[in-house]
Amino acid sequence: MVRNIFITFEGPEGAGKTSVLKEVTKRLENAHMEFLATREPGGIRIAEEIREIILNPANTEMDAHTEALLYAAARSQHLHEKVEPALQAGRVVLCDRFIDSSLVYQGIGRGLGVEKVRAINEFAIGRRMPDKTILFDLEPSIGLARIEANRKNEMNRLDVESLAFHEKVRAGYLQLAKEEPERIILIDANRPLDEVVEEVWLIVKSLIEEK
Amino acid sequence: MVRNIFITFEGPEGAGKTSVLKEVTKRLENAHMEFLATREPGGIRIAEEIREIILNPANTEMDAHTEALLYAAARSQHLHEKVEPALQAGRVVLCDRFIDSSLVYQGIGRGLGVEKVRAINEFAIGRRMPDKTILFDLEPSIGLARIEANRKNEMNRLDVESLAFHEKVRAGYLQLAKEEPERIILIDANRPLDEVVEEVWLIVKSLIEEK
Repeated sequence: MVRNIFITFEGPEGAGKTSVLKEVTKRLENAHMEFLATREPGGIRIAEEIREIILNPANTEMDAHTEALLYAAARSQHLHEKVEPALQAGRVVLCDRFIDSSLVYQGIGRGLGVEKVRAINEFAIGRRMPDKTILFDLEPSIGLARIEANRKNEMNRLDVESLAFHEKVRAGYLQLAKEEPERIILIDANRPLDEVVEEVWLIVKSLIEEK
Repeated sequence: MVRNIFITFEGPEGAGKTSVLKEVTKRLENAHMEFLATREPGGIRIAEEIREIILNPANTEMDAHTEALLYAAARSQHLHEKVEPALQAGRVVLCDRFIDSSLVYQGIGRGLGVEKVRAINEFAIGRRMPDKTILFDLEPSIGLARIEANRKNEMNRLDVESLAFHEKVRAGYLQLAKEEPERIILIDANRPLDEVVEEVWLIVKSLIEEK
């Protein structure tokens, strides 16, 4: 039975995406599902090399267009080398961040324009849009406080953006959810982790069973 | 007196672009012109880092879309950090390869489509098209023989493409020249270097004087 479905996890830093994905992964393992849980750059060497350039805190002179093109390049490689083969093999793929991250972080946060950023990302991914996207919604101030508490010593170039930047990112995500209600499922991430895990697990389970 | 003009040099490997640019550079120095002679990645750290990923012979698994996005990213950074400030300062800028290289190498050579590759490059460079482009035309077999004779020990990932690939590249360049005769000046590169230098120098000189 082919169960290939492509589900992405989106939302601001500190919303708990990664922790929730880890728990959902355990439950899929227990259910003996064929799945791939990944995130860009996902262990793909070329994409890892690109990511290093993007996140290097020394690269302060990076132009916003350069940054957006690098994200699209890393996405292209991760998709073609890892995600696409898994989907072709009939597996469930869960991916932590995908095109929507670029639409809001670069398109809105950096002010490059959603449609322009969408165009370079469509070049990168072709017709492979997520079947469903789970959007973790959270006040940016709460997300940033969580980040600061959890990993004070490894802030990267994006974590140090201003609160105003993260407010724009949140508004951007909510706008996308409004435009694509069929694809994007909005969940409230300002709750204890186990509650969020429970909700996301029910969503993922029902998406897989529906297929 | 402001003399800012943006001139790019295009053509296949082995056509002598780099050698000619070096000679033209000397003559501009002797004429005490304010100019910048550059080529991507042009000593721009971020662009150099991107270029390393593209040209690494080990990266055989690189998807063609990834490659095209990386070229556009390096171009964006080189343009914003180096070319644009020089033009703003009223200088003549000579650049060895620019957008046309991507249109033909990725758009036609790799078969991604000229218009798609143009779109991601327009994201990278905005409205900054070259004022004039000098296209060095040469039979690919002659260019490849020159490369082999000159640098047997440092073939990069693009030099090892097949003759058929380079034939497509040449046809692509000629097509662009036909579509944009106002911008692209075609020159015959199958002549002794000093003849080509002389012709290119006259073109560059008259372009600068016209401005």
